[in-house]
Amino acid sequence: MDRFAPLPDPPYYAVIFAAQRSAEDEPGYAAMAARIADLALAHPGCLGMETTRDAEGFGITVSYFRDEDAVRSWKADAKHLIAQQLGKERWYTHYRLRVAKVERHYSGPEGR
Amino acid sequence: MDRFAPLPDPPYYAVIFAAQRSAEDEPGYAAMAARIADLALAHPGCLGMETTRDAEGFGITVSYFRDEDAVRSWKADAKHLIAQQLGKERWYTHYRLRVAKVERHYSGPEGR
Repeated sequence: MDRFAPLPDPPYYAVIFAAQRSAEDEPGYAAMAARIADLALAHPGCLGMETTRDAEGFGITVSYFRDEDAVRSWKADAKHLIAQQLGKERWYTHYRLRVAKVERHYSGPEGR
Repeated sequence: MDRFAPLPDPPYYAVIFAAQRSAEDEPGYAAMAARIADLALAHPGCLGMETTRDAEGFGITVSYFRDEDAVRSWKADAKHLIAQQLGKERWYTHYRLRVAKVERHYSGPEGR
């Protein structure tokens, strides 16, 4: 269960980050990704994170936040950090990031 | 770019499905997953889908819909279909599904 984020009472926020990795610099990328994940989880208002990536390098990370202020302050932090990453352009060929307000949720399988 | 969903003008809806696969019945699962994806993409109001799963079987699929009505009618369809899947309980050890309203989005890398 530790790969799942908690289910706090809605509403809360989801930041959905879908990205295609380039083939370059896997060690550098892995170190950065671990650092960013630690920072996010320590950020005030961050509720948790779900992340996965397949063998073709297509990944989705969803970070959850208590409210929009927490999303905005994390974005400011993250941008600051990412701006320092000289290798940033090398790591993704494309990404899309969406900020969404979670209105309801479910978990399962039911009855287990 | 074909693994990314479009970026229609917000607001629109995201259905975030995170799930841990069991080790069972990969061919049956793959066939069901492909069928569900085709059905979702053909559903009125479905805007696109992003999906990935890692070697440990942890997957995230985000489906995007024009509005809440489209999410609800898809859920009704999906439940109907899933109810027919005798093997359903075998495929996931756990899943969490969240319905969220996308308020804004970005894509990048900028400047390319």
